[in-house]
Amino acid sequence: MNSKFPLPSWVYDTVIYEIFPDRFFIGKGKSIYDKRDLYEKRKGKIEDWGVPPKKSKNNDHVNVFYGGDLWGISEKIDYLKDLGINAIYLTPIFYASSNHKYDTIDYFRVDPQFGGLPALKNLIKSAHKNNIKIILDGVFNHVGKEHVLFKKALKGDKNYKNMFVFYKENYRGWWGTSSLPELHLEEVKVKEYIFSVLRKYLELGIDGWRLDCGQDLGPEINRFINAKVKEYSSEKYLVSELWTYPAGWDMVDGIMNYHFRETVIDYLLDKNPNAGYYLQRAFNETSNIYGCWNMLDSHDSERLASVLKDKFLRKSAILLQFTYPGVPVIYYGTEIGISGGNDPECRKTMEWDSNKWNKDLLDFYKKLIYLRKKEPALRYGSFELLSNEPLIFMRKTPYVLDNIIVYVNKNEETEISVSIPENRLLSGTSFVDLFTYEEFYVLSGTLKLKLSGRSFGILKVKSKVVKGYDQYKRLS
Amino acid sequence: MNSKFPLPSWVYDTVIYEIFPDRFFIGKGKSIYDKRDLYEKRKGKIEDWGVPPKKSKNNDHVNVFYGGDLWGISEKIDYLKDLGINAIYLTPIFYASSNHKYDTIDYFRVDPQFGGLPALKNLIKSAHKNNIKIILDGVFNHVGKEHVLFKKALKGDKNYKNMFVFYKENYRGWWGTSSLPELHLEEVKVKEYIFSVLRKYLELGIDGWRLDCGQDLGPEINRFINAKVKEYSSEKYLVSELWTYPAGWDMVDGIMNYHFRETVIDYLLDKNPNAGYYLQRAFNETSNIYGCWNMLDSHDSERLASVLKDKFLRKSAILLQFTYPGVPVIYYGTEIGISGGNDPECRKTMEWDSNKWNKDLLDFYKKLIYLRKKEPALRYGSFELLSNEPLIFMRKTPYVLDNIIVYVNKNEETEISVSIPENRLLSGTSFVDLFTYEEFYVLSGTLKLKLSGRSFGILKVKSKVVKGYDQYKRLS
Repeated sequence: MNSKFPLPSWVYDTVIYEIFPDRFFIGKGKSIYDKRDLYEKRKGKIEDWGVPPKKSKNNDHVNVFYGGDLWGISEKIDYLKDLGINAIYLTPIFYASSNHKYDTIDYFRVDPQFGGLPALKNLIKSAHKNNIKIILDGVFNHVGKEHVLFKKALKGDKNYKNMFVFYKENYRGWWGTSSLPELHLEEVKVKEYIFSVLRKYLELGIDGWRLDCGQDLGPEINRFINAKVKEYSSEKYLVSELWTYPAGWDMVDGIMNYHFRETVIDYLLDKNPNAGYYLQRAFNETSNIYGCWNMLDSHDSERLASVLKDKFLRKSAILLQFTYPGVPVIYYGTEIGISGGNDPECRKTMEWDSNKWNKDLLDFYKKLIYLRKKEPALRYGSFELLSNEPLIFMRKTPYVLDNIIVYVNKNEETEISVSIPENRLLSGTSFVDLFTYEEFYVLSGTLKLKLSGRSFGILKVKSKVVKGYDQYKRLS
Repeated sequence: MNSKFPLPSWVYDTVIYEIFPDRFFIGKGKSIYDKRDLYEKRKGKIEDWGVPPKKSKNNDHVNVFYGGDLWGISEKIDYLKDLGINAIYLTPIFYASSNHKYDTIDYFRVDPQFGGLPALKNLIKSAHKNNIKIILDGVFNHVGKEHVLFKKALKGDKNYKNMFVFYKENYRGWWGTSSLPELHLEEVKVKEYIFSVLRKYLELGIDGWRLDCGQDLGPEINRFINAKVKEYSSEKYLVSELWTYPAGWDMVDGIMNYHFRETVIDYLLDKNPNAGYYLQRAFNETSNIYGCWNMLDSHDSERLASVLKDKFLRKSAILLQFTYPGVPVIYYGTEIGISGGNDPECRKTMEWDSNKWNKDLLDFYKKLIYLRKKEPALRYGSFELLSNEPLIFMRKTPYVLDNIIVYVNKNEETEISVSIPENRLLSGTSFVDLFTYEEFYVLSGTLKLKLSGRSFGILKVKSKVVKGYDQYKRLS
């Protein structure tokens, strides 16, 4: 029995850009002051674009707004197109109290602070016109305590009480937090309610959902939601937030692969001497690895620039993000070098003054996005570890002359012979470094590499045809 | 087709204590002088308890007796219960010339030097009353040259000649030794004879057999004997002596895993840099690993205290013995620190003066036996290597909150991130060191460990419930 839904094929070709809407761009030529009513009438505070967010006592920083909205994102589509991404993941946009909107009041309203339903419709339209997909954040484990149905349930309305879990004195909140009552997901009424939310936005044209708190949903609710999404259309994509080892969560299309982040960053910081083996094992064991998100940061983590300050190490991490099987996800601003600690520091406003951009880094992202689109090996090749240290691996493809080898050498200059598990690869064939154009030759299935100190590279296989003679003529 | 008999389930919960009966304890308040007749009339020499056995020319040391017997073992059940073991493996006890009794004269008589049949019955009874199983040593490859049937065959009795292999001038002996004529195991008469021995003692109530010289028996005779034992009852256990790589000997419930001993000791002596990989491979390939014996020494090897004199290294070996899949087997006296070289030096008399015991070591054994009984992961969890050096592995269980991680760090203080191939393990969960109570946190399927120099530990997974909220509520 095939118990897995097929991965929508567009996902193989996708690079995602994650946006925290309040912090990306304010549309329609407005400033936060033009919009202040939208926040202040709901007890929010406003702040000037560019002022770094700071943690405050009693979690008050979640009520500080900078004014970004969905109109603003539509207006910056050209920037995203130029970068090369082809999907946007938006953190929650439904009516909710906080700036992050993980405390839903009403799933059926797009928050007016973000421009409401018209702004969402407009964003979907302009994104699709540019071949960019839209993925929304589905927060179904819990709601905010102002949620329309929770308030009724709390007052004792018998129609809604079973949608939550009430104890003698209180009720079940996420991590014990009373402001985030958990939905009683095993109840038919709650399942139908969630499905009606999923369907409403799928019908509007969005391309996928990211599920918040996948571990709280548990395997069965993840499975149920994926079934409902695929029932709607096989082309819709579902990813779940799971801060775990990735294998086994194959009842969804993929998970947010924070495990990849830990492995890569710890490796580059010399804390994980087994990273190559781990990357191989995770690939072998994770049947939906191509649908998982290769993340290096997000709204829930320190930013990459703060974790890896060293330029070579940071680029090495990004290289791995784009060359390991799975979908690269760029957290807005990381491509231009924005730094920031844990939440809320990682939720700075986007920098739109291009003089302040790290342009070398931005060009590096563009080059990698270009290569990922160009090379089938990087999109759907398998992962074959060639060496744990230095880290060298192949992305192996059905067509032998599409094979790609990737290396990261954080040590001194190294000469190394690697065995290549590819029986169609002939002596005399070479691999060319796509950054330096250096060429290395294969001899009897073995590649002799000379790697500079602190270097990385992507090598593409190359055969030569001599006066019409091609040794691969009957071999592909 | 299921070609394997199921492992008796009690074996998963078992820790075995190996006893060489002549050297453990003299029962009924006697001394060797009270029993001297039993030895001297059969050309044996007697020796005082505590005098170290020494190798002598012409193998004469096999005729030196200290007087231990099965009555003595029954009288020491309280010691064994306090230690925590729940099975005893006795080297041979049938009527035979030498002190080791591997030269059987009559399988149907318990040697009177050991107290005869009444002492065996009494031992089975008192052991079972204390939930301790009894495993006997089945020496079926060869007999002693005084064996009742061999003597008849040698004289030309046609009824018995085919039970052995006679050549023109002599007969086939084990390793060419004429004192140990080999049984002709392919003959129906011999098979029936062996089965009658097996049955006699199974009917007396013993719980299993250890087969001597498994390699000489060969796969088919091992298979035959296991079939006969299981035909009697699925609850009876059969282990074969094999000094080999363990995989593939799955026609019996398990083998004496001396390969484990070599791997662990060489690892700790810095002679085997790949031990972790080898332990993983042996686990993957050995379908009956849970029935195999994790041995660190025996009557056929140097004692652990002589091989690993360093306290930390010795404890590390013992830790691995109790945490690698399989049945730990403690060779009598090793738990109190008795040393000794190869046979006969490793067959010293047991020390009963508790002032001479290594009490720290004894407590360590007790703690490990306790943990093994308490933690399902240590009894039936799978083996998942997390790091080869330092050596870190998980015992993975069906229930996520039963998982255990074990480490041995023979190097200096080390910080290391390890990937944990367990997709249900959530960020925020911790692992607690059961020795030091230190706590380490999981982040995205990655565990960040800080290991002291020359340290070992057992870590148990721990989740917390906050005000009725449990992040594992839909996940186990």
